[in-house]
Amino acid sequence: MGKYVSMAVVKRLPRYYRYIDELYGKDINCISSRELAEQMGLTASQIRQDFNCFGGFGQQGYGYNVGNLRNEIARILGLDSGYKAILLGVGNLGHALLNNFAFDKRGFSLTAAFDKDKKFIGSSINGVSVYDIEELEQYCKVNLPQVAILTVPRSVAPELARKLTACGVRGLWNFTNIDLNRDLKDKDVVVENVHFSDSLMTLCYRISETSK
Amino acid sequence: MGKYVSMAVVKRLPRYYRYIDELYGKDINCISSRELAEQMGLTASQIRQDFNCFGGFGQQGYGYNVGNLRNEIARILGLDSGYKAILLGVGNLGHALLNNFAFDKRGFSLTAAFDKDKKFIGSSINGVSVYDIEELEQYCKVNLPQVAILTVPRSVAPELARKLTACGVRGLWNFTNIDLNRDLKDKDVVVENVHFSDSLMTLCYRISETSK
Repeated sequence: MGKYVSMAVVKRLPRYYRYIDELYGKDINCISSRELAEQMGLTASQIRQDFNCFGGFGQQGYGYNVGNLRNEIARILGLDSGYKAILLGVGNLGHALLNNFAFDKRGFSLTAAFDKDKKFIGSSINGVSVYDIEELEQYCKVNLPQVAILTVPRSVAPELARKLTACGVRGLWNFTNIDLNRDLKDKDVVVENVHFSDSLMTLCYRISETSK
Repeated sequence: MGKYVSMAVVKRLPRYYRYIDELYGKDINCISSRELAEQMGLTASQIRQDFNCFGGFGQQGYGYNVGNLRNEIARILGLDSGYKAILLGVGNLGHALLNNFAFDKRGFSLTAAFDKDKKFIGSSINGVSVYDIEELEQYCKVNLPQVAILTVPRSVAPELARKLTACGVRGLWNFTNIDLNRDLKDKDVVVENVHFSDSLMTLCYRISETSK
């Protein structure tokens, strides 16, 4: 087992994992900190320092064992947890996630989707059944999903978030472009946001800056 | 015009803008730092400090003028720039952005979309025409878009990114889950990433942490 890993390192782990996993997929067994640094736009010493936090996966002059490194990062991130996840709102974005996103490789098992639109209810999208949103609480009682993905219109997000946490959901992946902190005060739930709007405004600022 | 604004403050501006814009939409003219702090989960003194960076929009005891504050943040972010943007790849995610996202309120004017799928070429999605990806370079020569949105499969992203920057595109909004830094070395282009995968791995880690 690895040593204590600081939050600063943890924040860099998903990106490390992406690169290491790509190498692993290409059957590359070994990579030096110098080569990895070049690919990732980091310095070799930064990488060595980070990886030292969780054990000696490299030997001076021999580079890192890609398989071991991948397993260790996956273990720290909890990618073998298989948390049960449900998706709420199967519009375009919901469809995009259901069809193109490998949840099982990221620590999650997507077990059901929900919508209020009769057009989708009863159908199956990439093997995931779509249920009536009215059945949400009953489903949660029986199946105890730990995580919910919010790809619903923002107007319904706060109420749904409260309902989900009352049903025992412990994590929300929130695409609704509102912060749920006002609605989930005192709740023991983790919210990870994907704020398209903030990202695009940041791009706008950065482009404007380069024009000055 | 405002004073110099530090990068630390700039990073918080998109979120401030979202909240202030929401108040503005509700015809609220004035808000105190205390009220805003409570809504945003910040401290009032943090907010006062941040807003002091760009001029005196509040008076002790009277709160901030919501309209002025909104205009000033928009100005700093460049939200009135109207950068011409094109979208590449009109799959589920492309559709989601075209149908549900207010580009014009975020500093951009979405002028065209591109795909290689004949099913979409020639159609119009929410008023935006979809062109054959083969026409991309010709379109760019004539229309000079400043920004491109990448909602294509990751395998084609690096080549497209190189092509786009060669055509004069200065900003990429990248949803492809790969870093383009390897492919855009020495290019004068801003890349803003929305990495679903990193976000979900972070959620996985944070939930695992709360279980310990």
